[in-house]
Amino acid sequence: MKVLNFGSLNLDYVYDVDHFVREGETISSADMNVFCGGKGLNQSVALAKAGVKVYHAGAVGSADGAMLLEALSNVGADISYIKRYDMSSGHAIIQKNRAGNNCILLYGGANQNIGIDFIKEVLKDFDKGDILLLQNEVSNLSFIIDEGYKRGMSIVLNPSPINEKIFECDLEKVEYLILNEIEAADILGASDTGEDELIEKLTKIPGNEDSVDFGREGLCICGQDSEDKTGNIQD
Amino acid sequence: MKVLNFGSLNLDYVYDVDHFVREGETISSADMNVFCGGKGLNQSVALAKAGVKVYHAGAVGSADGAMLLEALSNVGADISYIKRYDMSSGHAIIQKNRAGNNCILLYGGANQNIGIDFIKEVLKDFDKGDILLLQNEVSNLSFIIDEGYKRGMSIVLNPSPINEKIFECDLEKVEYLILNEIEAADILGASDTGEDELIEKLTKIPGNEDSVDFGREGLCICGQDSEDKTGNIQD
Repeated sequence: MKVLNFGSLNLDYVYDVDHFVREGETISSADMNVFCGGKGLNQSVALAKAGVKVYHAGAVGSADGAMLLEALSNVGADISYIKRYDMSSGHAIIQKNRAGNNCILLYGGANQNIGIDFIKEVLKDFDKGDILLLQNEVSNLSFIIDEGYKRGMSIVLNPSPINEKIFECDLEKVEYLILNEIEAADILGASDTGEDELIEKLTKIPGNEDSVDFGREGLCICGQDSEDKTGNIQD
Repeated sequence: MKVLNFGSLNLDYVYDVDHFVREGETISSADMNVFCGGKGLNQSVALAKAGVKVYHAGAVGSADGAMLLEALSNVGADISYIKRYDMSSGHAIIQKNRAGNNCILLYGGANQNIGIDFIKEVLKDFDKGDILLLQNEVSNLSFIIDEGYKRGMSIVLNPSPINEKIFECDLEKVEYLILNEIEAADILGASDTGEDELIEKLTKIPGNEDSVDFGREGLCICGQDSEDKTGNIQD
């Protein structure tokens, strides 16, 4: 059994600012630091650190992607399914003020350049019984799910961030959904719903009868006929 | 006579946004475009396009600086005095909303990594009668002025953006100041001053008697014993 995480790789640019820049204004940041992030990368790093051999598939920019590849290979994740494109890596522009508050501007970059041919090329090396881990920060997510399902892979989806792209996916093909309360409510179209009600609604989904719970940090793993599992997620 | 522009090289990252990101918020930009900028680069490009052989000295990041070097060499500017450092090029994060308004976050990067040894190394190739063009977007500006003056170079300073660094410089060593009304008022410590009053104040500076005027776009060239000159500047 192999684990493939087809997910985002982001550079987080953190700028120290006096205040968040406003319309018409030009301000300077005295300090900027770069970190590796993205829900995809974070989950691969977590898996690798937990001792799982993980294959990360995704895309980075050829000029700025070296740091992302290094972060993964440093923890032992396989990076041979990561493409380099002549564009920016996905990134986040994070302004951090003196009080420690922040605001975030995301740009998908190479993460949003993942095409159908590349997806097929990667998935042909994986098969029935292999795990396909996904989040919602790369392009053609719906196609990845369809292809993985066709190959008999066991699909695990953290549908975050939840947006219209998630509702284009055939979630029936997903074996495990990794959610927190807010995402569970969004998926169910049940905003302002309490935890108990969410669990009730989630357990009504076929295959989920015995498997819904919220972990300490709100994590919920909803498996089809799976054991009940709770835990925390990193991003 | 050689013309040396020791100045900034900036990448302008322009992000299309619905609205400017606010405290605590995470938003996505659907489109990002990169342009070459920086007051230094813009002035070298303008000079080169006007047929002047210009040597640009400055610094860029080794991973992201290629586009800046190309922009200069494409117009025939000499780039042999530009250093590559293992850091980010100077850059601007520009959010542009649907109404076409913007806000700008600047980060000095390599522009602020220009040190004394590098300055000496560059200036040793220039001499009396050569022109040294400067703006206020690189580190150690005051030292560049002192060194250029020592070598007998003719110093032209566009003191923009005006901040405390300008007042650390010995402006007596500057032969030409390139200013607009706002910068003239800032330099004179005369905010809310009208154009006529500014001209009156500027003409009282020794050597400036005959040389102060505001061009169509507010440009003012104040030379020591020079001819009266007006025009427009790009940045």
